[in-house]
Amino acid sequence: MRIAILGGTGDIGEGLSLRVAYHTNHEVVIGAADPERARSKAEEYAVELASRGVDRKINGFVHEMAADRGDVVVLAVPTAELGDIIDSIAPRLDADTIVVSTIVRMERDETGWHYNPPPQGSVAEFVAERVPGQTTVVGAFHNLSADRLANLDVSLDVDTLVFGDDTDAVRNVRSLVQDVDGLGTLTAGGMANAAAVESLTPLLLTLGLQNDLHDLSVKFE
Amino acid sequence: MRIAILGGTGDIGEGLSLRVAYHTNHEVVIGAADPERARSKAEEYAVELASRGVDRKINGFVHEMAADRGDVVVLAVPTAELGDIIDSIAPRLDADTIVVSTIVRMERDETGWHYNPPPQGSVAEFVAERVPGQTTVVGAFHNLSADRLANLDVSLDVDTLVFGDDTDAVRNVRSLVQDVDGLGTLTAGGMANAAAVESLTPLLLTLGLQNDLHDLSVKFE
Repeated sequence: MRIAILGGTGDIGEGLSLRVAYHTNHEVVIGAADPERARSKAEEYAVELASRGVDRKINGFVHEMAADRGDVVVLAVPTAELGDIIDSIAPRLDADTIVVSTIVRMERDETGWHYNPPPQGSVAEFVAERVPGQTTVVGAFHNLSADRLANLDVSLDVDTLVFGDDTDAVRNVRSLVQDVDGLGTLTAGGMANAAAVESLTPLLLTLGLQNDLHDLSVKFE
Repeated sequence: MRIAILGGTGDIGEGLSLRVAYHTNHEVVIGAADPERARSKAEEYAVELASRGVDRKINGFVHEMAADRGDVVVLAVPTAELGDIIDSIAPRLDADTIVVSTIVRMERDETGWHYNPPPQGSVAEFVAERVPGQTTVVGAFHNLSADRLANLDVSLDVDTLVFGDDTDAVRNVRSLVQDVDGLGTLTAGGMANAAAVESLTPLLLTLGLQNDLHDLSVKFE
């Protein structure tokens, strides 16, 4: 499969791009608003992988071109830009494209981080409402530490939760996740549970703040 | 310390009573609506511990009498009875009693379990509003599997989250938690984060249902 990671130049996007390219045989393309930045980061990731003896070509494109190429299109873009980016890539999404939302909307105050979902109830439901009607949306990768993900010297040994109303699409994304060494996956069911999954992220960030821990992840056992 | 576990005859209450009595030097008393049932379960627990070479006296009382004896009063009672039980024990709570809420309010539909907090925002905040003004409320033990907790043959190796606005009380409860072998603890900060912690429980139950896993717990790492 070809995995297009929009926001692949950002923190979670960088880690996902590196891990998928490093551990799996899927082709990775990264998308950014600025195609030159996408290309230079893609080159940087390829150099990083080559230094570890892994020869992988990674291409970078403007979001629309990356989305056009993806069998799976991962949204790892800033929340504020999400709606516009979906609108811009919408004509490029095929009926069998799977769009993966990794995004959580939250805010911070003096007590910690708090989930702040859009009116649709969750970011994944916002995405599902905004993409063309035939496009399948799956949620995944919400609760991963960007730093741990991007550091290929570190074994992940964490779980992520995958959900969506199309069980075939959920199965495909879980299969992709499981190809990444040390990344476990459970399904959280359908979109009805999107908010519960997304709200785990601000809890993890709050626990990090309150306990002076960095890179906190979760394992279900 | 003397730990009074109200609802110590129920599922989470049984596990907490056994684990605290087995692993720590704290005195355990259990409370129930029916004092005869409290006494017979307390006796049952003592026999279970004796069979493992641990000689511990456990006493059982009606809720009010158990609460009267507790330095820490753990609420592990059914949600529907919670308000009335708090009212009945209120005259027995000293200024330095710590009340620990373990309770989550949730409902199940065909998509899984869903958090259903009271109007106060969380069960812990409901408890804090209902207890006498000087009483300190801490939240803990929400996300533990009752079966795993009650099975002393099983190493726990899980974490629980402790929160509350009184940092000394949170520290005391975390210290109690840490005395139980295999039970890790992080603080989730103050009452502002109560709902985030409580809502982890329906997510764990949903993950159990969706993945056909029993006794799902969580480790933060």
